[in-house]
Amino acid sequence: MQHSSLTPSERMAKLVSRLTDFDVDVLLLLDMKNIRYLTGFTGSDGGLVIGKGRRVLMVDGRYVNQAKREAGDVEIFEYRDKMDAIEEVLSYGGSVTVGFESAAMSVDTFCKLKEKLKGVELRGLSDGISTIRAIKDEGEIGCIKKAADISFQALAAVRDLIKPGVREKDIALELEFQMGKHGAEGASFPTIVASGANSALPHAAPGARRLEEGDIVLMDFGAIYSGYRSDETWTFAVGRADEDQRKAYALVKDAQERALEAVRAGAACKEIDRVARSCIEDGNMGTYFTHGTGHGVGLDVHETPRIGVKSESILEAGMVVTIEPGVYIPDLWGIRIEDTVLVKESGYEILTNVSKEFMILNQS
Amino acid sequence: MQHSSLTPSERMAKLVSRLTDFDVDVLLLLDMKNIRYLTGFTGSDGGLVIGKGRRVLMVDGRYVNQAKREAGDVEIFEYRDKMDAIEEVLSYGGSVTVGFESAAMSVDTFCKLKEKLKGVELRGLSDGISTIRAIKDEGEIGCIKKAADISFQALAAVRDLIKPGVREKDIALELEFQMGKHGAEGASFPTIVASGANSALPHAAPGARRLEEGDIVLMDFGAIYSGYRSDETWTFAVGRADEDQRKAYALVKDAQERALEAVRAGAACKEIDRVARSCIEDGNMGTYFTHGTGHGVGLDVHETPRIGVKSESILEAGMVVTIEPGVYIPDLWGIRIEDTVLVKESGYEILTNVSKEFMILNQS
Repeated sequence: MQHSSLTPSERMAKLVSRLTDFDVDVLLLLDMKNIRYLTGFTGSDGGLVIGKGRRVLMVDGRYVNQAKREAGDVEIFEYRDKMDAIEEVLSYGGSVTVGFESAAMSVDTFCKLKEKLKGVELRGLSDGISTIRAIKDEGEIGCIKKAADISFQALAAVRDLIKPGVREKDIALELEFQMGKHGAEGASFPTIVASGANSALPHAAPGARRLEEGDIVLMDFGAIYSGYRSDETWTFAVGRADEDQRKAYALVKDAQERALEAVRAGAACKEIDRVARSCIEDGNMGTYFTHGTGHGVGLDVHETPRIGVKSESILEAGMVVTIEPGVYIPDLWGIRIEDTVLVKESGYEILTNVSKEFMILNQS
Repeated sequence: MQHSSLTPSERMAKLVSRLTDFDVDVLLLLDMKNIRYLTGFTGSDGGLVIGKGRRVLMVDGRYVNQAKREAGDVEIFEYRDKMDAIEEVLSYGGSVTVGFESAAMSVDTFCKLKEKLKGVELRGLSDGISTIRAIKDEGEIGCIKKAADISFQALAAVRDLIKPGVREKDIALELEFQMGKHGAEGASFPTIVASGANSALPHAAPGARRLEEGDIVLMDFGAIYSGYRSDETWTFAVGRADEDQRKAYALVKDAQERALEAVRAGAACKEIDRVARSCIEDGNMGTYFTHGTGHGVGLDVHETPRIGVKSESILEAGMVVTIEPGVYIPDLWGIRIEDTVLVKESGYEILTNVSKEFMILNQS
């Protein structure tokens, strides 16, 4: 069952109801994605204080008008210096226990706040806060689907460009341009187009290399729609493929399918990783699977939960995660297959739209 | 006099020579821009430990091959878990004092490291580390110039698109596409194209609004070349401009010119800001100048030094900074004029190429 869409105000109310669990009086939020999630404010800098009866969005002069327009139900506090603003806003209520995002706050900021806020206890809430955005509501899932749809349309629009002689970076540039043309606010992350030996670098930046006959090409990309991101990978061959490549592709495809079949509410993330990893190990390519199996996707392209060997997270209905096993043979080629999927009570729904069959483009 | 270009290895040696000033045995660097500056490694995740005789670049499996290719003169250490890697690398030398980037390290990471590194003293080096990239060498300045040149060419290529009826976001998209076509690795930051009342929001995101006769349009943009960024703003009118807009433009132009004239090695950043601010205050528009006068530009679009009311920095030859005063009349329009400039012993050199005359496009 999907969660119906929440307003920012309802999200804040939900978080306020957890203050007792966090054992704090108020929360100080500085992560701009969390602030966007809770208020609707899309600016690049600011701070948010929320507690029982208090919702104060602190912004600098650049953002006052925008904050008033975007963030309803919160008091807007304009500052010249953010630290001074935090001190002033937190001093309203006397000495308190203040929860903060310990994964998002720098040691510098922490030291400055500690110095300023005499009589205030600062309590880091790394795990508690990182999970507030993990379960997506209907509106959020709709945005991720729309982002995936834009990515799909953009890929279709550049399809004819993908052939021998064309540079990786020209394909990436055209793909990002087409994502924009189809309504994206931007790319989820710098688009990866890696050909030949470059595909063996899981996070290669697209360069001047021109596609050649016999190349494996790995494209990892995604679009942003209303702040929400998609994340997908398409791996294919140009002209021809050898037996090793075909076998490896089939193995990664098998690993991805098995991992997908393990996705459901209640499944342990490390178990999803184990399923994908043991499949690739059984094909004697375990040493070439050099990263985790997936991660949460939403306002950030990498967010809670992580799906890896050490993950302690449990999947819940409404989470949106990638499933992306891969193998990378140094100096030769790499293969990754990735979808973004919605976790459901009894399974999953694929939100992305990427071909999973091994395709050989421009085959003569 | 310009500093000649340094190799990553020379940059590391220079930093090592400052360990005594920092009063630490080794440095642990986690800011990827600092790591790129010091090693040449362009990946998105990793860590660097440097000390007397030690240069260890820690990367996860995705980046091992890339690190070997890009980063000479350092030992590559592959990890599955970054915290474990830091523990292992730092344990080579017994108990030591470890300097770290307190502005770049999260409280979470700090707490984890403190827990792991028994017998190690962690020393935050916010100010010391943030300055290592502030003075640019010839190679870096060449890259920023090239980035500015790409921006200029891209703007020329979209010039015909800028007319009534065209959406802000289509201009922004085309400009970023043209930057890519002209050799940019990407945009320095999300391009701003703000028209009409949107131009009164200093950091507006380009939207569906179509340019209209009588609009002020503010475009703030920049390209990335070899990792280095340019930053420039062009404000103009469409069709016609009223007397208030002309006066405000002349005032901002005057403020920008006076601030530029104050730029030289030895000048206090807050004095540069005061020159621009008092000029705008003298024109009775001080309350509409709602941000600082400028900031350093390099591998990051915002870096040391800041040029604002509270800045304690002093300009040095080789620094590259923006000078960008502006005024923003809520719900009406905004005007900003911005160059990226190189600080010289006795003055400055403008690296960007943006028209400073008040232009009225499509004037009938």
